Amino acid sequence: MIRYELLATDGAARRGRLHSARGTVETPVFMPVGTAASVKTLEPRDLEAMGARVILANTYHLFLRPGHALIEKLGGLHRFMAWSGLTLTDSGGFQVFSLGERSEKAGGGGPKPGPGLVTIAEEGVTFRSHLDGSRQFLSPERATEIQLALGADVIMAFDECPPSLAGRAYHEQSLARTQRWLERCRHAWVQGSARRAQAGLTPSALFGIAQGGLHADLRARAIEEAAALDLPGYALGGYAVGETPAAMWEGVARDAPRLPPAKPRYLMGVGTPEDLLAGVAAGIDMFDCVLPTRTARNGLLFTSRGRVNIKNARFTEDERPLDEACGCHTCRTHTRAYLRHLFRADELTGLRLNSIHNVHYFLALMAGAREAIQAGRYEAFRRAQREGWEAGLDG
Amino acid sequence: MIRYELLATDGAARRGRLHSARGTVETPVFMPVGTAASVKTLEPRDLEAMGARVILANTYHLFLRPGHALIEKLGGLHRFMAWSGLTLTDSGGFQVFSLGERSEKAGGGGPKPGPGLVTIAEEGVTFRSHLDGSRQFLSPERATEIQLALGADVIMAFDECPPSLAGRAYHEQSLARTQRWLERCRHAWVQGSARRAQAGLTPSALFGIAQGGLHADLRARAIEEAAALDLPGYALGGYAVGETPAAMWEGVARDAPRLPPAKPRYLMGVGTPEDLLAGVAAGIDMFDCVLPTRTARNGLLFTSRGRVNIKNARFTEDERPLDEACGCHTCRTHTRAYLRHLFRADELTGLRLNSIHNVHYFLALMAGAREAIQAGRYEAFRRAQREGWEAGLDG
Repeated sequence: MIRYELLATDGAARRGRLHSARGTVETPVFMPVGTAASVKTLEPRDLEAMGARVILANTYHLFLRPGHALIEKLGGLHRFMAWSGLTLTDSGGFQVFSLGERSEKAGGGGPKPGPGLVTIAEEGVTFRSHLDGSRQFLSPERATEIQLALGADVIMAFDECPPSLAGRAYHEQSLARTQRWLERCRHAWVQGSARRAQAGLTPSALFGIAQGGLHADLRARAIEEAAALDLPGYALGGYAVGETPAAMWEGVARDAPRLPPAKPRYLMGVGTPEDLLAGVAAGIDMFDCVLPTRTARNGLLFTSRGRVNIKNARFTEDERPLDEACGCHTCRTHTRAYLRHLFRADELTGLRLNSIHNVHYFLALMAGAREAIQAGRYEAFRRAQREGWEAGLDG
Repeated sequence: MIRYELLATDGAARRGRLHSARGTVETPVFMPVGTAASVKTLEPRDLEAMGARVILANTYHLFLRPGHALIEKLGGLHRFMAWSGLTLTDSGGFQVFSLGERSEKAGGGGPKPGPGLVTIAEEGVTFRSHLDGSRQFLSPERATEIQLALGADVIMAFDECPPSLAGRAYHEQSLARTQRWLERCRHAWVQGSARRAQAGLTPSALFGIAQGGLHADLRARAIEEAAALDLPGYALGGYAVGETPAAMWEGVARDAPRLPPAKPRYLMGVGTPEDLLAGVAAGIDMFDCVLPTRTARNGLLFTSRGRVNIKNARFTEDERPLDEACGCHTCRTHTRAYLRHLFRADELTGLRLNSIHNVHYFLALMAGAREAIQAGRYEAFRRAQREGWEAGLDG
C-alpha cells in the first residue's frame, strides 16, 4: 500500500514522501519508463546510481510478452528485472488505444472508426496484438488481475484515454464508461488484494484516473466521483495527447488542486522539463514519460542550457562535458566530441550514455524542485531553469 | 614502448607481463575490440570492472570517422574515449581488404579481381570508403602515421592479409610485398616516433606481422625476415581467414615458437575459446576478436558449459544465472529468463548484459590460463575447459 506524507508546500507546489512496503520515495518525483521491464539501454544499477526510486512498466507490453503469468511465477516484476526500488504499472488502456485504431462508431467528433483493430464495449476492449496480430481482450477486471500478477507497488485503473481534442460528446460518453470501469477496477483490486495478502505477497495500491479532456466540468466530475472511492492515489490522464502545452498547463493547474490533498497526485505521460515544472507548480507529485529515454536514442539531450542535438557539427572538437552544470556519469566522464562521434558511428554505447544523461537530468530537476519547495523558493527555481534553457549553451 | 617479461612457462605455453608507459598487462591476454573507439554496448568503466587491461581499435574505421587528425587534436585515443588502460590499433590493412574487393589481376589462384574497389600497388592500396564511397589511400607510411596520431600503445604493420586458401603463388607474391612494406613501416615508425618524443608524447610500439597462409616455409621466412628488424613485438596474421580450425591450430603451433621469445606474440583476430586455448598452448601472448561482442548481440553466449543461445525456449522460466560458474555482473544479477525476455523484446540492455558476460568470459578464460601456466598444469586446465563445454548446461 502507498501512504502519502506531506513535508512542505510552496503555493500549490508540494514536497512529500510516498511510503510503501518496499521503501520510500521523495516527491515530486520523475519515474523513468521501463516499458518491457527494462528502461531502454539502462540497467537497474544505473537507475539506482542516479537516484531513481520508482520506475514505470507497461502492462500492455508485459501482458503480451513475456506474459504476466510468467512474471508472477518468477516472483513478480521487481524480482524478474532485479530492481530494488518501487514500480508502477499502467493499466494497458493507453497502449490499447494508442497502438490500435478504434472501430467504435464515435459520435460528436470523437476518434474516427478504424479498421476494426480495437473494439470498445461496456465489458472491455478487444484489440489485436502489435506483435503477432492475435485477438486480445482487456477489461477493468482483467487489467487489474494482470497488474496484481505483475505485483507493482502502484497499479492503475483501466480507462479510456481519448485525444484531448475529441469532441465533448465523445468525452462525456467515454468518461461515463471510464467511471463505471473505475468501480469495477476497485472491486477487482479489493478482491485480488485479499487473495494476495493471504499468500503473503506485497500489496499493490490502486490509483484512480480522472479523464475529461479539456472540459473543466467533466474533469471536476471525474475527480469528484473518483475521490468518492477513497483510493490510495489519483492520476490525471488524458493530458499531453494532442493539446497545446499551454492548454495542458492550464488544465493541470485547474485540476490538480481538486485532487484529494492527502493522496499522491500523478500526471500521466508528462512530459518535457517545462511540463514537469508546470505540473509541480500545480501540486503534482508524480510524473512519467518516455521523453528522456526516447529522445536520447535520437541524439536529443536535455541540459540546463536547453535542448542539444548531439549530432551538431559544432561539437566536433568540443572537449567540454555535454552539460557543464550536470553531475551525471556521462558528463563527468565524456566529452561532447566523443558523444557526437558515438552517435554518428551508430554505437550503442552512445545511446546509453545519452540515456544516462537525460534520465539523470529529469531526476535532478525534480530533486531541485523538492529542495526549492522546502526552501519556499519554488517559483525562483522554476524561473532560473527557464532562463538557463533560454540562454542556450553559449549563453 | 612495450617490454615483455617472462614469468613462467608450461610446455610452450607462457605467462608474462607487458610493460608500457601506461601500465602493465598480464599475458596471455584477450583484447576486446573497440572498432570505432567503443567496445560495442560497453563503457570503459565496464571493461575496467571486468579486468580488461588492453583493447583494440580499428585504424580503418577511425581514419574514416571521425578521422585520426581529430583524435590526435583531442589528445589521442585514450583520452578521446576516456580509457585508462592500454590500446592497440591494427593497421587498417585487414579492413581494406575484407571490406573491399580486390581489383588486382591475381595469379596462382589468388583472390578474384573485383569491381575495382580495392587496388593494390607497390606504393599502397587505393580503396573506397564503406561509409561514403570516397576514394581513399593507405600505404605503410600513411597507416603508420595515422596510428601514431591515434597514439595507441601498440601499433601494427600495414600488411596484406590474403585468404588462407589463396594459392601459393598469390601468397608468395603478396608476402614479398608485405615484407617490403614492413621495412617501410619500420622506417615511418622510427621517424614518427622521434617527432612524437620531441613533443613529449607517449611512445607507440610497432609490432611486425608475419603472413604466409598455411605454407610452413613462407611463414618461416616471413618470421625470420621480420625478426631481423628487431621490432618490439610480433604477430601472426592471416589465421582464421577461411581455413579449418584444425589447420589454424596446426599452423599456430608450428609458427608461434618461431617468433622471437623475448618479444610479445600476438595472434590476430583469433578467436573462439578453443582457439585461444590452442594459441596459449603454442606460446601466444595476445589475442583479439570481435566474437564475444558480436555473438552477444546475436544472443549467442559463451559459458563454462559451452555455447548457449539465449533465445531458446528452454530458458523461459529458468531463474538460474546464465553460467553458474561465472562471476560476471550479468550472472551475479540476472536470470536466464530475464536475459531471454530482453533479447526477444529487442531491448538494448539485453545486448549489453550479453556483451558483459561474453567479454568477461574471454577475459576470465585467459586469467585461468595464466594461473594454470604458473602452476604448471595448463594442459589439465585446457582439458577441464573442454570437458565443461562438451558436458553442456545439463551436464
